[in-house]
Amino acid sequence: MRFVNLITLTTDFGLKDPYVGQLKGAILKRNITARIIDLTHFIPVHDILTAAITIRSSYGYFPRGTVHLIVVDPGVGSQRHILAIMADDHLFIAPDNGIVTLLARDGKIQAVHRIDNSSLFPREVSETFHGRDIMAPIAAALADGMPLQNVGPEIEIRNCVQLDLPVPQTDENGITGQVLYIDHFGNIRTTITTAYLGQFQPSSFSGIYIGKHRIHTISTTYSEQSSGELLALIDSSGYLEIAINKGNAAQKIDCRIGDPVSVIMNSEHDCDRDQKCSL
Amino acid sequence: MRFVNLITLTTDFGLKDPYVGQLKGAILKRNITARIIDLTHFIPVHDILTAAITIRSSYGYFPRGTVHLIVVDPGVGSQRHILAIMADDHLFIAPDNGIVTLLARDGKIQAVHRIDNSSLFPREVSETFHGRDIMAPIAAALADGMPLQNVGPEIEIRNCVQLDLPVPQTDENGITGQVLYIDHFGNIRTTITTAYLGQFQPSSFSGIYIGKHRIHTISTTYSEQSSGELLALIDSSGYLEIAINKGNAAQKIDCRIGDPVSVIMNSEHDCDRDQKCSL
Amino acid sequence: MRFVNLITLTTDFGLKDPYVGQLKGAILKRNITARIIDLTHFIPVHDILTAAITIRSSYGYFPRGTVHLIVVDPGVGSQRHILAIMADDHLFIAPDNGIVTLLARDGKIQAVHRIDNSSLFPREVSETFHGRDIMAPIAAALADGMPLQNVGPEIEIRNCVQLDLPVPQTDENGITGQVLYIDHFGNIRTTITTAYLGQFQPSSFSGIYIGKHRIHTISTTYSEQSSGELLALIDSSGYLEIAINKGNAAQKIDCRIGDPVSVIMNSEHDCDRDQKCSL
Repeated sequence: MRFVNLITLTTDFGLKDPYVGQLKGAILKRNITARIIDLTHFIPVHDILTAAITIRSSYGYFPRGTVHLIVVDPGVGSQRHILAIMADDHLFIAPDNGIVTLLARDGKIQAVHRIDNSSLFPREVSETFHGRDIMAPIAAALADGMPLQNVGPEIEIRNCVQLDLPVPQTDENGITGQVLYIDHFGNIRTTITTAYLGQFQPSSFSGIYIGKHRIHTISTTYSEQSSGELLALIDSSGYLEIAINKGNAAQKIDCRIGDPVSVIMNSEHDCDRDQKCSL
Repeated sequence: MRFVNLITLTTDFGLKDPYVGQLKGAILKRNITARIIDLTHFIPVHDILTAAITIRSSYGYFPRGTVHLIVVDPGVGSQRHILAIMADDHLFIAPDNGIVTLLARDGKIQAVHRIDNSSLFPREVSETFHGRDIMAPIAAALADGMPLQNVGPEIEIRNCVQLDLPVPQTDENGITGQVLYIDHFGNIRTTITTAYLGQFQPSSFSGIYIGKHRIHTISTTYSEQSSGELLALIDSSGYLEIAINKGNAAQKIDCRIGDPVSVIMNSEHDCDRDQKCSL
Repeated sequence: MRFVNLITLTTDFGLKDPYVGQLKGAILKRNITARIIDLTHFIPVHDILTAAITIRSSYGYFPRGTVHLIVVDPGVGSQRHILAIMADDHLFIAPDNGIVTLLARDGKIQAVHRIDNSSLFPREVSETFHGRDIMAPIAAALADGMPLQNVGPEIEIRNCVQLDLPVPQTDENGITGQVLYIDHFGNIRTTITTAYLGQFQPSSFSGIYIGKHRIHTISTTYSEQSSGELLALIDSSGYLEIAINKGNAAQKIDCRIGDPVSVIMNSEHDCDRDQKCSL
């Protein structure tokens, strides 16, 4: 596994404070030639699930051998461990709080190490910012070619913290999921993926319900529908997405994370369906 | 034309989602040594005019041979083309939606190519994110020295989409323009440029009206006026700007994009002028 | 002093406009291999004190020989000077408006030069954006190894503008300070530092008051207290911080910058203390 001296950052720090800058300083202090890319710093504060979804749907756009540093760390200073996880030829540095759950479910894990070799840490480690004081220099050293086993002992992924994920329910009438994420454009990502849709014949598809709105077809692109019309499509990460061509879907239908979304298959009883879906 | 392996990014993505990070990953996957600079990711969603103004007033601060990737793309997935435009020794990659209108009006265009050589695209191209899946790898390859003609056929700039630009009106009484942009400091950029002001004798200048406010002189710097006082100056891109020394002009006079701004020349009839300007 | 061709940026520009991008372009035009790191661009507009605190608590996370460019410049275009300051083996470029006050109080200043060698400036210098037109190319040249004395004459730090800093008051009852800064997580930084706390015996500590809230102990980490409970600790820069484990302290206690905070030592008279602290 060749490292490419590239480190991505995913945090809940925002950009108002100098914390992201300090993290980058700590990386460069150990590895002045590292290339650092911000994935995002606007993970909602302490929202491990959003961090997990973000990193899983993004790491593949980077070269193999990239190091991904993920600092969403509500347990900083407690007994929680810090992990270095090799998966799908990428390396992930994160607290052991469930961020790598999705990578584990995908069966992509190659090795997991607990970071506890304090000879690699700087002299002064604060109790409130392990991202900067422990994870950043370790990520910097690994991106620079330090062997993974140097960070600490190999452990089993089944001994790591796993997240409870919101899982869609399927029955003979279709799939019931929920709103997972709303992006800057107001596009609505649902928990329903191509894996769930693939359990039904395409010909049995009879509509999508979100709030009181029904969408009759799954489009290929935004521009297939008229401007302002609610539409559904499969997004570039394989999730069922609700959107509006040249508009903000979440705003228009006043939708929030967690709201129910249903895909109806083979249904003959419209009134039943309506009752089910206009909760 | 020597490229300097430098790519700027201008988008309407915001920074909440991982889209900008994914775009950078896609660049680095093709060209790991590319240097990437964010120009801004806060173009208002789908606002092609603001993107056009931003790129025109900014590209010149970068070295010749810089590649500028501009992804404000409400038509993604439709039949709109993607262009690679050489202008003023810089290279611009953008959808054919009018973003390069201002460069064309400046007479700076050197060559326009339509990007349609799909052998350069990655295996999987989503229908919703051509910025990441088509434009980013093409920009990466061009910054790395790939000949421009490889991307697709040369076309005529007159066959490209042009924006309708808000154009100031001039008559013997002066210039009537409007508010074009309001920045983070509350400084107000107007559509009136030095080109319009230059059509009149400086000695004929008799004032600027915005809302109910009159400004009697054009200053050279903010600090020339007292703190808190409304002033006008020519900004560093040649636009007439309304500002307040150590204050927020847009907030103070409750001004919005599109509001009328007038420069009065040689006027003798104050009441007429007031009627004209306090619309 | 070896420079590492690394430049950090601290500004009050925000990220909506292309100003930060233009600043980076101006750096790269002079020094195409410079490495540029954003410390933050969300210093409140014209807030020199916050800029001073930010740079002082952050520069040390970067390698020695880093150039720090700080553009919070309400006096742009006036007679204020621009300085290049060597301190603690880092180089700071900033307007002479007090930003380096804290570095001076720390006794870390090694040399101060006034930047006035206009042969180093670009042909066109705007009167409204010296950050881009003067400071950026100078920072770029210095990071690239240009000798410091080239920028202009050495001057005395005592002739530079100093800020009035909010200073805690101490008496035999303890320390009275105020809220200095509130971060993205709602953590509250106070003006009270370990230097002030060290003037008292740890055994004499009897509580911290902020608003109507009393905190009985100084914790080592957030996780030492239950979720949702108000706590105090020493932050990673040596300031007394008020926080909530997995919560937003500033929001919960409705706290603002400038609010009083008291550390009570050896107190026997609770009613007096309460009167003092619930102002």
